[in-house]
Amino acid sequence: MKIGVFDSGVGGLTVLKALIRLYPQVDFAYLGDTARVPYGDKSAQTVIRYSLECADFLLGEGIELLVVACNTASSYALNVLKEHLSIPVFGVIEPGVRRALRTTQRGRIGVIGTRATVSSGVYKRLLEANGVEVFQKACPLFVPLVEEGILQGNIAKEVVRYYLSELKDRNIDTLILGCTHYPLLRPVIEEFMGRSVSVVDSAESLALEIGSYVENSGSSTLNLFFTDRSPGLDALIELILGKSVDYKLLTLSCKL
Amino acid sequence: MKIGVFDSGVGGLTVLKALIRLYPQVDFAYLGDTARVPYGDKSAQTVIRYSLECADFLLGEGIELLVVACNTASSYALNVLKEHLSIPVFGVIEPGVRRALRTTQRGRIGVIGTRATVSSGVYKRLLEANGVEVFQKACPLFVPLVEEGILQGNIAKEVVRYYLSELKDRNIDTLILGCTHYPLLRPVIEEFMGRSVSVVDSAESLALEIGSYVENSGSSTLNLFFTDRSPGLDALIELILGKSVDYKLLTLSCKL
Repeated sequence: MKIGVFDSGVGGLTVLKALIRLYPQVDFAYLGDTARVPYGDKSAQTVIRYSLECADFLLGEGIELLVVACNTASSYALNVLKEHLSIPVFGVIEPGVRRALRTTQRGRIGVIGTRATVSSGVYKRLLEANGVEVFQKACPLFVPLVEEGILQGNIAKEVVRYYLSELKDRNIDTLILGCTHYPLLRPVIEEFMGRSVSVVDSAESLALEIGSYVENSGSSTLNLFFTDRSPGLDALIELILGKSVDYKLLTLSCKL
Repeated sequence: MKIGVFDSGVGGLTVLKALIRLYPQVDFAYLGDTARVPYGDKSAQTVIRYSLECADFLLGEGIELLVVACNTASSYALNVLKEHLSIPVFGVIEPGVRRALRTTQRGRIGVIGTRATVSSGVYKRLLEANGVEVFQKACPLFVPLVEEGILQGNIAKEVVRYYLSELKDRNIDTLILGCTHYPLLRPVIEEFMGRSVSVVDSAESLALEIGSYVENSGSSTLNLFFTDRSPGLDALIELILGKSVDYKLLTLSCKL
């Protein structure tokens, strides 16, 4: 079968990587909307429109299952996508929530994400429905930091301290990385938060959860589509996927 | 008369502000393409398409002169815009270049901008044609820093040091701020570069240079259009324009 994965840009490749690791005998089509990245500072209305356009494009590629590998799009557009599409649709929010609930010991969970994801309140709502305490923080500089390839050193540390001090003071025991770019900053985040905090990345949970829907196709093609071949794109893909993954890189000529 | 100004987002408001200061008796329509911001990491082809769409929208608003208040769009799309439009079109690059050439004493000029502006090489070409030495540096984190409102303090200082150390070592005497967001970081940039370096912001030069085309209209309306009412937009507008400027804020319903 062919699985479609989309994200506002390259961040969703961390999710794609987890999927490929678990399902090596499946075809994948990935769409990164680099012509309109980032979604995280945009309004709900705009994110929903962009998400529907991305899904339509992937349907045209013949996908049979859709993964929304972007927390912002999952927060704002997942229900609309489920209504409009006749194939199974999965987002990254709920698997992250379930994993955090299994992980927490003292019921104090932190959530970090883009401004859009945090203001949507979707993590907070789902978690609080299970009786835990939730502390949210938007970290708008993390995505540009990752896209600039600054994953360690002084600047990364200062920016992590800037956003996460407040959560550290709240004495959380679990921290959800509510944005698919953030796993690349995980070492700096873990160093700052210390050993008493478990960091949760939803990619692996998501990959496990869709297992019953996945059928081996006996082939393993990987087409990466981007709406813009932006400068630095190739380097970022390699940084995230690693050198060992084979793929075909295509730039959309259609007007998304 | 009505002057149209467009930018990928809010950065061009620094240019708008300089224009309003010099021409208080003129009508303005500003378009910030916040649904697709930033342009600075996108390809030439995509930036040209977006620029033509922005210009078309402003023409529909009845403008008689167009200012491209975005260095990325000026680098990539100015010639195409001049060909397609029958009204005068001005960018921010050439006024900045002329001012830098008047300013430099030792003919060593630094240029900072987005990745797109720097790789277009437009500043370098125009400056070198006048026999000066040019040192360029792309600073992709400056725009997100400004949009996050981090204009001073440790992070701003560390990021400025990260990008500008190289230029400082080159012993430049003039530094062009080749992005309309950067004037907001000017104090930190000037502090780091020291007194021996003159910082050039093209907004004022541009405002002076279009003088012969400007006619008072006796009125002074200001309509700000944005393609997305993104979270934090209102605060950013106030941060840049100041509290004393009266405007009407409109979100586009049309699909740009």
